[in-house]
Amino acid sequence: MIVTVTLNPALDLTYTVDALVPHATHRVQRVAERAGGKGLNVAAVLHALGEPVLAAGLLGGATGAAVRAKVDTPHSFTPIGAETRRTVTVVDDIDATGLWEPGPVVTGEEWAAFQEHYLGLVKDAEVIVLSGSLPQGLPDDAYAVLIRLARRHHCRSVLDTSGAALGRGAAAGPDVVKPNAKELAALQSPTTAAVVESHGPDGLIARTPQGSWRAAPPEVVTGNPTGAGDACAAALARGLRDGTPWPELLADAVALAAAAVKAPVAGEIDINHYRATRERVHVQPHR
Amino acid sequence: MIVTVTLNPALDLTYTVDALVPHATHRVQRVAERAGGKGLNVAAVLHALGEPVLAAGLLGGATGAAVRAKVDTPHSFTPIGAETRRTVTVVDDIDATGLWEPGPVVTGEEWAAFQEHYLGLVKDAEVIVLSGSLPQGLPDDAYAVLIRLARRHHCRSVLDTSGAALGRGAAAGPDVVKPNAKELAALQSPTTAAVVESHGPDGLIARTPQGSWRAAPPEVVTGNPTGAGDACAAALARGLRDGTPWPELLADAVALAAAAVKAPVAGEIDINHYRATRERVHVQPHR
Repeated sequence: MIVTVTLNPALDLTYTVDALVPHATHRVQRVAERAGGKGLNVAAVLHALGEPVLAAGLLGGATGAAVRAKVDTPHSFTPIGAETRRTVTVVDDIDATGLWEPGPVVTGEEWAAFQEHYLGLVKDAEVIVLSGSLPQGLPDDAYAVLIRLARRHHCRSVLDTSGAALGRGAAAGPDVVKPNAKELAALQSPTTAAVVESHGPDGLIARTPQGSWRAAPPEVVTGNPTGAGDACAAALARGLRDGTPWPELLADAVALAAAAVKAPVAGEIDINHYRATRERVHVQPHR
Repeated sequence: MIVTVTLNPALDLTYTVDALVPHATHRVQRVAERAGGKGLNVAAVLHALGEPVLAAGLLGGATGAAVRAKVDTPHSFTPIGAETRRTVTVVDDIDATGLWEPGPVVTGEEWAAFQEHYLGLVKDAEVIVLSGSLPQGLPDDAYAVLIRLARRHHCRSVLDTSGAALGRGAAAGPDVVKPNAKELAALQSPTTAAVVESHGPDGLIARTPQGSWRAAPPEVVTGNPTGAGDACAAALARGLRDGTPWPELLADAVALAAAAVKAPVAGEIDINHYRATRERVHVQPHR
């Protein structure tokens, strides 16, 4: 089983309007509501592929309940007292405007309760995927703590976050870190086994103990890039679980990311596009 | 008892940001969340004044549950299947930007269930207050139906709405209609007993079978005008219940509206300002 961890999920609201005009009142034409959070997207992709997966994380309040109701994958969340955050994305004819709520403050007791629950999960898991930002109240080394707990139980780990959480987490030695190129530059000599850098539409570069490779999609895919990185993380987790050789694993990750771009909603994949692309990804050794 | 009816309530979210910039991403500094809806404000003002009041209306889904949890007055809502709407107001250093969700579509069965529940309430009520917009799915004559049901049970009515709902409702002969001056112009010869026009900071003009009066506050009050009209409706309902003479009732309505402007949040009043203003409102006969 693969367990995904989403410590700072959100209720993602997308509002469609004609044109966003500051200081005017807008009648929203269409409201889309979904469970947001990188770990939830990873779980949704694995679930769509038929892989056994469990989504864990923190949820609180009425907004937390609304998120839970929208998670289609098997899940086991830990309750917190504060309200889970919302994100509002206002889409008009030109582009999207984002409004991100600050989110809950997690208490030390809630963090301890999560760790205890997590310990029960990693005993049955082969791989954990730690994705996204940390909520307020959690220490910067929260992912480092979870990576070490997993390793004690022979559970492998994929880390996909940014900033201080990435720096501290990478130092704890996860099996794979998946930063983007910009975040990688800030990362000081990770002790991690493998670093898989995402380069957006240009694909991936992986530096591993077995060698370095570059994997690029056969053609440029246009669509919704949100969630492409999470589809890539899903492929990395599955490959890690199965011991898939890196070139094959990277081709799979690039194809899944492209299939996520083709799907209109983050956390979904165009399965036909995935199947048609997987054999055509260019993988070559990297200097 | 006074019963307020809110057929299209909302979860009102207020986001504070530095400056709203279209097509940028904003970290929201502060989130305020409240139960929105004109009838809920009327009920809150009456409750704050110690008057027996019950808030009725329609609520649905997780957002409806969040609204219910935030209503401090006695209430008895009728459930609907669709989600209650949200409104998002983004406040920056310059002004507010509004985003209004379209809201639920109410079915004929739900409307019938509400009417049956309402019939039970009007039997015990002296006055009903019908406030705000109608949700999708309800006929334009929805308030007219409720006004006639109330009258059959010797329950008096105050109508505060706009557009077609106001036109159809006013034709059913409520005891008081409270349009603003602009809406009044569109209203064709209402059969209503009394029309109380709001003129914002200039006060009220009332045309009643007992005479016409103009009531003006003793000084200009600056603050939050949202909810001032609802405080006025609360005063009208109380005066109607008690048979208060019009000049005294109008002074009370103007003072309560001013006390609502002084309070930072719609549905709240500055009780000290109310007490200090009530005796000083200028009421004079109007041509």
